[in-house]
Amino acid sequence: LIDGPALWNDLMETARFGGTPKGGICRLALSDEDKSVRTWFAQTCEALGCTVTYDSMGNQFARRAGTCDALPPIMIGSHLDTQPTGGKFDGILGVLGGVAVLRALHSADVSTRHPIEVVNWTNEEGARFTPPMLASGVFGGAFTQEFARSRPDKNGITLGEALEQTGFVGEEDCGKHPASAYFELHIEQGPVLEAEEKTIGVVQGVQAMRWYDVTVTGQGAHAGTTPMTMRSDALWAAARMIDGVHQVAMNHAPDGLSTVGIIECLPGSSNVVPGSVHFTVDLRHPSDGTLEIMEKEFYQTLEAIAASCGVEFRTSPTWTSGAVHFDPLCVSFIEKSAQNLGYRARRIVSGAGHDAVYVARVVPTAMVFVPCWKGISHNEAESAEPHDVTAGANVLLHAVLQADSE
Amino acid sequence: LIDGPALWNDLMETARFGGTPKGGICRLALSDEDKSVRTWFAQTCEALGCTVTYDSMGNQFARRAGTCDALPPIMIGSHLDTQPTGGKFDGILGVLGGVAVLRALHSADVSTRHPIEVVNWTNEEGARFTPPMLASGVFGGAFTQEFARSRPDKNGITLGEALEQTGFVGEEDCGKHPASAYFELHIEQGPVLEAEEKTIGVVQGVQAMRWYDVTVTGQGAHAGTTPMTMRSDALWAAARMIDGVHQVAMNHAPDGLSTVGIIECLPGSSNVVPGSVHFTVDLRHPSDGTLEIMEKEFYQTLEAIAASCGVEFRTSPTWTSGAVHFDPLCVSFIEKSAQNLGYRARRIVSGAGHDAVYVARVVPTAMVFVPCWKGISHNEAESAEPHDVTAGANVLLHAVLQADSE
Ligand SMILES: NC(=O)NCCC(=O)O
Ligand SMILES: NC(=O)NCCC(=O)O
Repeated sequence: LIDGPALWNDLMETARFGGTPKGGICRLALSDEDKSVRTWFAQTCEALGCTVTYDSMGNQFARRAGTCDALPPIMIGSHLDTQPTGGKFDGILGVLGGVAVLRALHSADVSTRHPIEVVNWTNEEGARFTPPMLASGVFGGAFTQEFARSRPDKNGITLGEALEQTGFVGEEDCGKHPASAYFELHIEQGPVLEAEEKTIGVVQGVQAMRWYDVTVTGQGAHAGTTPMTMRSDALWAAARMIDGVHQVAMNHAPDGLSTVGIIECLPGSSNVVPGSVHFTVDLRHPSDGTLEIMEKEFYQTLEAIAASCGVEFRTSPTWTSGAVHFDPLCVSFIEKSAQNLGYRARRIVSGAGHDAVYVARVVPTAMVFVPCWKGISHNEAESAEPHDVTAGANVLLHAVLQADSE
Repeated sequence: LIDGPALWNDLMETARFGGTPKGGICRLALSDEDKSVRTWFAQTCEALGCTVTYDSMGNQFARRAGTCDALPPIMIGSHLDTQPTGGKFDGILGVLGGVAVLRALHSADVSTRHPIEVVNWTNEEGARFTPPMLASGVFGGAFTQEFARSRPDKNGITLGEALEQTGFVGEEDCGKHPASAYFELHIEQGPVLEAEEKTIGVVQGVQAMRWYDVTVTGQGAHAGTTPMTMRSDALWAAARMIDGVHQVAMNHAPDGLSTVGIIECLPGSSNVVPGSVHFTVDLRHPSDGTLEIMEKEFYQTLEAIAASCGVEFRTSPTWTSGAVHFDPLCVSFIEKSAQNLGYRARRIVSGAGHDAVYVARVVPTAMVFVPCWKGISHNEAESAEPHDVTAGANVLLHAVLQADSE
């Protein structure tokens, strides 16, 4: 079984890399903080007898040999990068839960037939380089490596450049790495498990999500001399659009979701009517068909508001990820493990994207969720209970062992 | 009479300091570009026989001696700083129009009884250091020097520090400079004169204006897992508030104005429900009483929206300037000059704040407006006709001569 205190200790120790005064983490992909935690991860796994390699997207693979080393490995993984004001569990638990599995096998001197590999996927959050899950996306064939490496951060540094600078680049072409199964442990990041007092979420799949960039163009003008009726105010129009985007989700309650997370306004002076505004939109729904309808409503809303406010706008989709259904056999390993270990469990659909979304395209995949405090995530206040964390890692361990004996 | 081509040439020549590809100017107060234009101004006035001095707020005074040098000078002035994407005329015309008056007196070898001074006021725009008209505000006693010098730019550099760095600081205490009259020439920055085909606006005064900072606080949360009804979305609330602020002006059409010119949103990630938003509000009306009512409506709007969106907010006034009525005698000099020179003129109230607002508190003051293209200002496309510009400077010259003979 998992050494719960050692896992908790790893979570708290690595939270120092990019730790914020409010108890969260700011560890953007391939930043100095991310470099530190990657080095920690490699050294910790090597101390448990693993070999650490990198592929061409900087994904880190810590491999524990199997008795039948020609078999494709069973992979466990997630990501160690965080949001700008992220928490201590999102992604991190999936990687350190994998380390806990390695430790359990190592301490008990257990041999598996398959090699076991723990993976740290590069740039899952999409906070530094959009879209999210960029490196697992290349692994799963959703993005080309050229596209992924060309993505710029807000200072114009591309992911490719950041990779070269950090030196975390291996010979192996991303996606060429074989695997027989992939398991990812994650906090739910939502309120369901906590509310229903369940310890384990058996994740069936992931909802559909689409991202857009919107640019509104009006006419910069003087705030004191331009009559209201002669203005073409890009920010007033954008404000009404943001309210409209909110309404699109409300039209499809309770499952529809919409979020505007970034807004920028030019020229940005108190006494200048804004001439140009940029904002992002994130639309989600468990059903691909409903999300399609939401997209139509979103476009219609923008058009109607632009016309009534006398501004121009441009919108472009920046990311789209269809609804995902995980591998039934892998899901059953999770479900059986939770049952065998006596944990209160329920089936659940993930609201958040995860590396598992893209890995599932090429490897049989499933996920385990554990509850988090009030469902809060992407926030420094993100928190989880030690016993839930340990339970999740135990389910991970047992699912891996079941997969190994198939 | 004014040498029109020389004035136009000065306008085009100085537009190089901070000139933008789109034909505008980015010359923030006390920036390197502002330093260059200040040096140009000092040298040009010295070549016309003037002495240039500075006061403790960096205001530049170019003095042409009078026959009766003990008389307080007649001042002409405005500002040479611009908005981040400003035009070639806002403020600049008032200073270079003053230079054109000096040139006319110099060429014709005319002596005046009073000394004539052309002033370049520091940081009028309020784009780098808020509020606007900061140095003329100290001159007029609206702000203490301590307050003005402590104002930070967005990088945390205070106006006091910027002044020391640029070296444009004189011995004389700001406000101690005597003057018998102040005239300011400016583009209208609005559409009225152009629409009515008038060459000269005889400015009666300036409307009332108030600025506010608003901070909305919600709860950062995951965009994919947080149900719409469980969110406390600071940006959705701010968007509705911005629409509400717009409505406040519409309630007092056509004279009421409201503008949100700056917005910032944290943490600023596509898949994070924003936890905090800051924006600015600019409310204006020619009547102090109506502006008071608009302020009440503005507060009520914010309260109602915050309650309905489940967010907290804080608002603080950052600047307030009451309605200004210029000196009747000085206004009559402008009106008579326009009449004597045969220009089509009309009385007008200024929608924009000007250095004249604060100078008027301590010196008899009036302003001249000339039309600008489509009323566009605070925009790189700002433009004015050479013959209107010349006409404005001629009115300035004749008003100064009238004031001198009183
Ligand atoms: N798990 C997680 O927060 N991933 C980021 C991608 C998303 O926005 O769902
Ligand atoms: N003239 C001018 O644009 N001044 C800036 C102050 C204001 O916003 O009215």
